[in-house]
Amino acid sequence: MSYESRRFRTILLLAALSFASLELRAQSPGRVNGDRMLEHMAAMAGIGKDPGGGYARVAYTEADRQGREYVMGLMRAAGLTVSIDAAGNISGRRAGSEPGLQVLVIGSHIDSVPQGGNYDGVVGSLGASEVAQTLAEGHLALRHPLEVLIFQNEEGGLQGSRAISGELREEDLNQATRSGKTLREGIAFIGGDPEHLAAARRKPGDVFAYLELHIEQGGSLAAEKIDIGVVEGIVGNHRWDVTIEGVANHAGTTPMNQRHDALLAGAKFIEAVNRVVTSMPGRQVGTVGKIQVIPGAYNIVPGKVILGLDVRDLDEARIDLVFSKIRDEAQQIGQASGTKFSYQQVVGDRPALCDPRLRQLVTESAKQLNLTTKLLPSGATQDAQSMARLAPSGMIFIPSIGGISHAPEEYSRPQDVVNGVNVLLRAVLQLDAQKW
Amino acid sequence: MSYESRRFRTILLLAALSFASLELRAQSPGRVNGDRMLEHMAAMAGIGKDPGGGYARVAYTEADRQGREYVMGLMRAAGLTVSIDAAGNISGRRAGSEPGLQVLVIGSHIDSVPQGGNYDGVVGSLGASEVAQTLAEGHLALRHPLEVLIFQNEEGGLQGSRAISGELREEDLNQATRSGKTLREGIAFIGGDPEHLAAARRKPGDVFAYLELHIEQGGSLAAEKIDIGVVEGIVGNHRWDVTIEGVANHAGTTPMNQRHDALLAGAKFIEAVNRVVTSMPGRQVGTVGKIQVIPGAYNIVPGKVILGLDVRDLDEARIDLVFSKIRDEAQQIGQASGTKFSYQQVVGDRPALCDPRLRQLVTESAKQLNLTTKLLPSGATQDAQSMARLAPSGMIFIPSIGGISHAPEEYSRPQDVVNGVNVLLRAVLQLDAQKW
Repeated sequence: MSYESRRFRTILLLAALSFASLELRAQSPGRVNGDRMLEHMAAMAGIGKDPGGGYARVAYTEADRQGREYVMGLMRAAGLTVSIDAAGNISGRRAGSEPGLQVLVIGSHIDSVPQGGNYDGVVGSLGASEVAQTLAEGHLALRHPLEVLIFQNEEGGLQGSRAISGELREEDLNQATRSGKTLREGIAFIGGDPEHLAAARRKPGDVFAYLELHIEQGGSLAAEKIDIGVVEGIVGNHRWDVTIEGVANHAGTTPMNQRHDALLAGAKFIEAVNRVVTSMPGRQVGTVGKIQVIPGAYNIVPGKVILGLDVRDLDEARIDLVFSKIRDEAQQIGQASGTKFSYQQVVGDRPALCDPRLRQLVTESAKQLNLTTKLLPSGATQDAQSMARLAPSGMIFIPSIGGISHAPEEYSRPQDVVNGVNVLLRAVLQLDAQKW
Repeated sequence: MSYESRRFRTILLLAALSFASLELRAQSPGRVNGDRMLEHMAAMAGIGKDPGGGYARVAYTEADRQGREYVMGLMRAAGLTVSIDAAGNISGRRAGSEPGLQVLVIGSHIDSVPQGGNYDGVVGSLGASEVAQTLAEGHLALRHPLEVLIFQNEEGGLQGSRAISGELREEDLNQATRSGKTLREGIAFIGGDPEHLAAARRKPGDVFAYLELHIEQGGSLAAEKIDIGVVEGIVGNHRWDVTIEGVANHAGTTPMNQRHDALLAGAKFIEAVNRVVTSMPGRQVGTVGKIQVIPGAYNIVPGKVILGLDVRDLDEARIDLVFSKIRDEAQQIGQASGTKFSYQQVVGDRPALCDPRLRQLVTESAKQLNLTTKLLPSGATQDAQSMARLAPSGMIFIPSIGGISHAPEEYSRPQDVVNGVNVLLRAVLQLDAQKW
């Protein structure tokens, strides 16, 4: 290629960029249709009401399928080319103006826990679709191809996004899920192809960046009256099944000083977890959220207890330190009570830090919209942590009133929802202009 | 009636009593056939083996019915007239020599908990039948009619004996039982007539005395190498469902200082129960044997806990005092953690003291057999507490090795089993001679 030819192409490129920039300015500040976004939220609220309160769009149930159909309709209306990948994730794509660029991905999930809310995942999913629709209506061309990804079964362990990052293994497909179906059956139920799971996998380099809008699920933004949370990273989450073996015996005939009560030892363990976690500086959390007593009767001194321990922090070394201190305390409890503690790790999700450039970009986008921001971690697991294995990733949080989530009382104010989608739109536009 | 005639009858009566007394002495010391008793125990061990270990002759199951058939066969072989009352209890009777006297009752139960042992209830049931067979073989006439009573569903709340004492109410018949059947269906299944439950009821005055042989189920006789326990009384047993209400929330996103964790409050409650019960002098026991966490997941701070509290003592005022102290502690836990405690009493069995004359008589019977004795309470509930509402009642305990009961490891040595049956025989003979 000659020098002249190269020079001509450079001029053409600069002209094209100027035009794109002009077009962007022409539409600026570029706001989404807030009323439409809220109407879509309300329509989604008609799908999967839980008789026990709130919503149950549990993955692989009929309500999940209906929710997916609804969002696919919105995506098609936004001009996206919709398909379902082998793992059952919904993909909606639009072409970019500049050939050969990696895809810019935005998205979230629409499945829920039982008796959950209509915001967790829904805000980000419908928000991503709303961004696509706003871009289509404004004839706003992006350099990069844009993909709206609705990950399947986020609440059941990030199954869809883990298939994309390659962390979901073939053997995991036989696991039972909340729906009653195995993962394999569930993926087939929603239109995926579990026999060719690897086809859903993406490689590092396939994706330019991933950006997700989500509710905070914690109470710090609402308490401090901050509009937008800029996510530092998604905490690591380790879980263990802790088994405590004592001696089952008759609750009427066994004197107090002759007991090896596994539940009494378990009670001391639960207190120790709380003491260890709260006595260290930092934002780590530790929870015992489930417990099983065997045999579990009024009149039997408990012989065995199995409880679920969950520890989270942005720093994995801190998780290890917390667990090590808990084990030390448990050993003393075991010695004093004649019980035996053992541990089986069931989850070991590593922390996923958000890309500093994306944090900066989200902060600037919010400021341009006169919204206040705060840097904070995501204490909840997120599909973004799978995506962070593949590409620079970021998250935008909006306030959750009272910090309540995974419950019927989950709520974010309409203005906060619309603010979030506007920040997502602006961040997408600015991200598209980056040349990393 | 003339004076002469009355005098003649008195002479006849005295002659008859001398003859009875002579006959008794002729057969003394009167021992049961120990080998036969142990063979019967072994045969019973062939019925209702639990695949999970030990025995499961859970009331109203096929194994329960087989166990009942087996013991009815033994009772018929012992010359008893066998029938099933309206409540499903098995009754085997033999006439007394002196007309108009009240019936002397001995017995126990053959139903078991799941994964239970082959001694709890079985020793007393087969022991009572063995006493009847020994009396028959020795042609030992008793003044009083003798009745061997095998109470149904002792382990499910003394259902059979409570029907006899009139404490089982019509409306209780719709309760579910461990077998899966309702109480009504269960009673019909074993040959009772639940529609005429009142027919099983007996009145105070119908029964001369009730005496039951049983395993201790606690470890004190075995630990102190005592042959026979003379039961002071059966402890009262109060049970409550304790509900703790906190706030369910996301275990990742809810900072430690913003939680109202119902399980953490429950853990402190379990510790408080233990502290209150062990800090008072006395033999009271207090147990939390079951716990339910709602919703009960690794990743949710528990919103609600329901646990089962069981408190027992021979003195009902002491049970009340223990519960009152526990409530005081719970109120402080609730205030400190922002949780709310409430209580529903589900069982309120009063203590039942054994008749002092029967205690004395059992003590003397054991001494005559050169067996050591100890006075002790029964920490377990017993059919004898229903019978104590109707008649002077007593219990004979034999050692439980390691104090283990309601478990596959439940065990009493063959010699202790035979000792117990011999004490029962001797006590029956001496009781029959009493003129209370």
